Amino acid sequence: MAVATQSLEQLCINSIRFLAIDAVEKANSGHPGLPMGAAPMAFVLWDRFMRYNPKNPKWFNRDRFVLSAGHGCMLHYALLHLTGYDSVGIDDIKQFRQWGSKTPGHPENHVTEGVEVTTGPLGQGIANAVGLALAEAHLAARFNKPDCTVVDHYTYVILGDGCNMEGISGEACSLAGHWGLGKLIAFYDDNHISIDGSTDISFTEDVAKRFEAYGWHVQHVADGNTDLEAIATAIEKAKAVTDKPSLIKVTTTIGFGSPNKANSHDVHGAALGKAEVQATRDHLGWSYPEFVIPDDAIKHFRKAVERGANYEDEWKAALETYKSKYPEEAATLERLLSGKLPEGWEKSLPTYTPETKADATRNQSGVTLNAIAGVLPELVGGSADLAPSNKTLLKGLGDFQKGQYQNRNLRFGVREHAMGAICNGIALHRSGLIPYGATFLVFTDYMRNSIRLSALSEAPVLWVMTHDSIALGEDGPTHQPVEHIASLRLIPDLTVIRPADGNETSGAYKVAIENRHYPTLMAFSRQNLPNLEGSSIDNVAKGAYVLSDNSDGTPDIILIGTGGETYLCVDAAVKLREEGKKVRVVSMPSWELFEKQDAAYKESVFPASVKKRLAVEAGVSFGWCRYVTDEGATISIDTFGASAPGGVVLEKFGFTVDNVVAKAKELLG
Amino acid sequence: MAVATQSLEQLCINSIRFLAIDAVEKANSGHPGLPMGAAPMAFVLWDRFMRYNPKNPKWFNRDRFVLSAGHGCMLHYALLHLTGYDSVGIDDIKQFRQWGSKTPGHPENHVTEGVEVTTGPLGQGIANAVGLALAEAHLAARFNKPDCTVVDHYTYVILGDGCNMEGISGEACSLAGHWGLGKLIAFYDDNHISIDGSTDISFTEDVAKRFEAYGWHVQHVADGNTDLEAIATAIEKAKAVTDKPSLIKVTTTIGFGSPNKANSHDVHGAALGKAEVQATRDHLGWSYPEFVIPDDAIKHFRKAVERGANYEDEWKAALETYKSKYPEEAATLERLLSGKLPEGWEKSLPTYTPETKADATRNQSGVTLNAIAGVLPELVGGSADLAPSNKTLLKGLGDFQKGQYQNRNLRFGVREHAMGAICNGIALHRSGLIPYGATFLVFTDYMRNSIRLSALSEAPVLWVMTHDSIALGEDGPTHQPVEHIASLRLIPDLTVIRPADGNETSGAYKVAIENRHYPTLMAFSRQNLPNLEGSSIDNVAKGAYVLSDNSDGTPDIILIGTGGETYLCVDAAVKLREEGKKVRVVSMPSWELFEKQDAAYKESVFPASVKKRLAVEAGVSFGWCRYVTDEGATISIDTFGASAPGGVVLEKFGFTVDNVVAKAKELLG
Repeated sequence: MAVATQSLEQLCINSIRFLAIDAVEKANSGHPGLPMGAAPMAFVLWDRFMRYNPKNPKWFNRDRFVLSAGHGCMLHYALLHLTGYDSVGIDDIKQFRQWGSKTPGHPENHVTEGVEVTTGPLGQGIANAVGLALAEAHLAARFNKPDCTVVDHYTYVILGDGCNMEGISGEACSLAGHWGLGKLIAFYDDNHISIDGSTDISFTEDVAKRFEAYGWHVQHVADGNTDLEAIATAIEKAKAVTDKPSLIKVTTTIGFGSPNKANSHDVHGAALGKAEVQATRDHLGWSYPEFVIPDDAIKHFRKAVERGANYEDEWKAALETYKSKYPEEAATLERLLSGKLPEGWEKSLPTYTPETKADATRNQSGVTLNAIAGVLPELVGGSADLAPSNKTLLKGLGDFQKGQYQNRNLRFGVREHAMGAICNGIALHRSGLIPYGATFLVFTDYMRNSIRLSALSEAPVLWVMTHDSIALGEDGPTHQPVEHIASLRLIPDLTVIRPADGNETSGAYKVAIENRHYPTLMAFSRQNLPNLEGSSIDNVAKGAYVLSDNSDGTPDIILIGTGGETYLCVDAAVKLREEGKKVRVVSMPSWELFEKQDAAYKESVFPASVKKRLAVEAGVSFGWCRYVTDEGATISIDTFGASAPGGVVLEKFGFTVDNVVAKAKELLG
Repeated sequence: MAVATQSLEQLCINSIRFLAIDAVEKANSGHPGLPMGAAPMAFVLWDRFMRYNPKNPKWFNRDRFVLSAGHGCMLHYALLHLTGYDSVGIDDIKQFRQWGSKTPGHPENHVTEGVEVTTGPLGQGIANAVGLALAEAHLAARFNKPDCTVVDHYTYVILGDGCNMEGISGEACSLAGHWGLGKLIAFYDDNHISIDGSTDISFTEDVAKRFEAYGWHVQHVADGNTDLEAIATAIEKAKAVTDKPSLIKVTTTIGFGSPNKANSHDVHGAALGKAEVQATRDHLGWSYPEFVIPDDAIKHFRKAVERGANYEDEWKAALETYKSKYPEEAATLERLLSGKLPEGWEKSLPTYTPETKADATRNQSGVTLNAIAGVLPELVGGSADLAPSNKTLLKGLGDFQKGQYQNRNLRFGVREHAMGAICNGIALHRSGLIPYGATFLVFTDYMRNSIRLSALSEAPVLWVMTHDSIALGEDGPTHQPVEHIASLRLIPDLTVIRPADGNETSGAYKVAIENRHYPTLMAFSRQNLPNLEGSSIDNVAKGAYVLSDNSDGTPDIILIGTGGETYLCVDAAVKLREEGKKVRVVSMPSWELFEKQDAAYKESVFPASVKKRLAVEAGVSFGWCRYVTDEGATISIDTFGASAPGGVVLEKFGFTVDNVVAKAKELLG
């Protein structure tokens, strides 16, 4: 087709395609196929339906857009540029996939304004979108009034075959169907191609039927390449169904327009190559040089700027009315949107004395959650079907269920991975909600990528993990974490805290709640633990601190404990001191927090001159050399655990006061 | 009902129930609910259909049974005891969940003969079962002859609501449907209860419809508590459908027989308590003391012993005929079953010299896989939709597809977690097959629990991971592993190898193939790497070895490299030596293998007297203190990566020869 014959809409759609083609070609790296095939559905959505304000990407009531098939990110960057976002100029697009650019190889919300969540690992985006839609439903139920609506937006997603093959998407979509999230609308880019070739070789299930089984409203657009009206009609119908999420299966041709590579995996993840780029220009009648967009297209796309300003103005007007009519709710909503915590919230944290009866930190965690839930209306969350074991139920606050969206307990079912990504989505809704997700520590293995992404995408989620060691006992090695605490400490920007008792549990929550930029993972015990002399809420923020010391500052040995093993160090120190030893006991709930302290504080806890150090932790020894020095030692477990009562398991693996004393004496020689 | 009125079958079913009830009660720990509810289906299966030989649990052609809902393991232990397995005596059952017992809290194949796979983490078992059924289909297609069948068994699974909520089960069952594994028959124990209570609060999808969408044959037994004939008929129908896997949804009452706790989550995961145990005895008319089984029941169950002996004899006879008619195939089959590798297989491993052109180790991995596939007919495997990137395709050996089960390339689709558990199942089929599974290293996060279980359950799988560092470049931080090598080194009994070049790649495969007891994970580069002077196939088995040293054995400094960073150490050493420094270069492809060496060898590589050590690895520094001492240092990356061309990313993060030289000089002072 010649340019002359191209409708304005075709011109706009091809503008998206060629920005993607040219950017990938210049970088000689990337994924042109998806943008070329999905451009029509994306254009119809962004041009006719989606409500957003390019000049204020953070406008609270905007519709959320998630590209779950994150490798197709040039589609998103092209839309942001064309509709007038300042975050992506044409020069940024020319810098696609280059060092320090605003257009990295996969969408990163912390890099590019207008990107809501970080996608790329397949299936995460659709699960994040369930979290975004959940947040909208929850806030709408809590704040909207019959005569005044201040929370009202859709969440749109584009996902591909890869997302649909991943288990996490199945988990998340089953929940979305159960919850009946009617304002979640997902486009399934059914292009029949993945990296290995045709999906015929590994993916022949009936996806539409599966989503119907989840309780979704499902439609099919047979020609997603050219039938714009069918796409528009499907979106209208999807919006009309308010009690079910909608899947619109849009059959497209990957790499549409490329005469020799379309509908093949060659166009999925590599540049077209000079010749094929030209052939595609010829085939689509695109006479513009690379990175040049016709004025008519730009002019049309940029109408989004005025449109968006009006949307936000309307909302602001509604908010003003809301403030006058419902000042109290308005104040709460505005505080939430500001991201500020209520003055003095931390006074609600429980405190303990050595006289307080011994208890499991998982129980103290449950008490803390319920205590702070009263002063933090933004706290919402739940467990992956282990609420009675994780102690995460917020009493009297009800279950978030279809039609009961105002309630704050989330019932994730046995779906750890989806729970992780949904919590990330709630946090990245950026409406002040503080989500928490819980399971047994060992099952962080089921949700590890979501935990990693909470750190990478700066989603300040609270990860509440219980049954944090072999001390859980009878369930045995499949349920006993051994390498997990260490493996989580490895994740950049994730703070891991393993409290020793009640005060440190309160301290862990203080750190976690006040850290509104990054996630925090807390590991709690199944077994009872004594409340320790000298334990402190505030010292948890320092990562490690001196619990007791009978020396003048240069002890013979430093005993380092974390979590449930700290009291072993305390009791061992008593015995060693009876024998005249100078012993310091350090409680070290968090390595990451300790590393953030200045050199002077570090030296005050671990004097360089004191080389005899013994770390006691019911986990792998890996990494402890960092704190115990070449002359130190650890009491740890470098094998899998075993099934037996918790006390027996601890004893068999050497987690006893006597063994701590013995190992300390060995070191002292 | 009074005992007198109990049919022999009821007596048998209640025998299962009360062994579970009494064992959990004695341990005061465990899950009585599932065994009580699933006893009828399990009894019908084990009594009327399943082919096994209690006196030879390892009989190759046995039907496989997997309890995917592993927490209900007392069901399995009871069946093993009642049918006459020597591995589980009544005293073992009395030791349920105690230290060192044969009856741990979840089924562990390496502890209890008769248990095929290790389950407990939900969803793993059904995915393992897909692997077991795949192995049977593959071997049957390769070895059976029109006139002689030597491979012919079913794989039966019981899974619960929890398994069905987990994404991994969806991934695995989608594949099973795609592959049309007709001899896989799964019972869905539809008891409507999970730990959080009724599944109504989180799991209301139409499971049967979902499995139909996967291409399964689905049936429903409405009364799984008492309608034994309906269960039997369903199994017969399932066996009659040979081109689809079968799901039999069996609606049961969890804790059936407990008058006050049945159909509640109280009976899911805790002992009934003395009073309720008695109430249940009264309710089911069970007058026998704890752990006492009526003779009639024992007598009937133990018929399995003679039955099983006959099954095995028939098979042996068939095998004899097979040997005489098809001696060549028989020899191969017998070698596979023996677990022995063919004489001199390792001669097929490619070798390299420094003159061999630089290449990516992922390419050398692909060459190696294809080279050894020729001499190792037991090698089967594939990638999670990244075959062209992982270089894992076995050329000319075809795709394992419905009706093409003899082929050796497995197309897993984008389903890492299921791939992991399916590979575990293939390995635990214990028929000599050597499975491999591949994806990008960063996506081990999607399958971490399966990798952990390969180590815990002693499944000798080859994990082939490519794109092993930030050097992969443009795809950015979501695709760049940083903490992953370290996090995998943490897993007990998993050997992690990161080869530096071609010879070390061959060496990695030599170690991995010869390790028939535990899994091996190999990490390969996307980028080209030079073949190093002094690199060695055999030295990989030592974990670390001296590549070069210009000292008399006490160098000024030791440069330690792994994988793609080793050559930086080699080149840096040249420069440092030009300046008169005595420099040793150690290539350290595997920590685990090095730790297995004796003290003398370790000292010969890392002399205690040489404290100046610099480790260079494009991953986190965590743990390296173990080898670099308090006086050493690392060049590592403790943040997330970034999107840019690989060479640029490496340079920005300090992975250059000049930086290695500079850091070394700092250490040397």
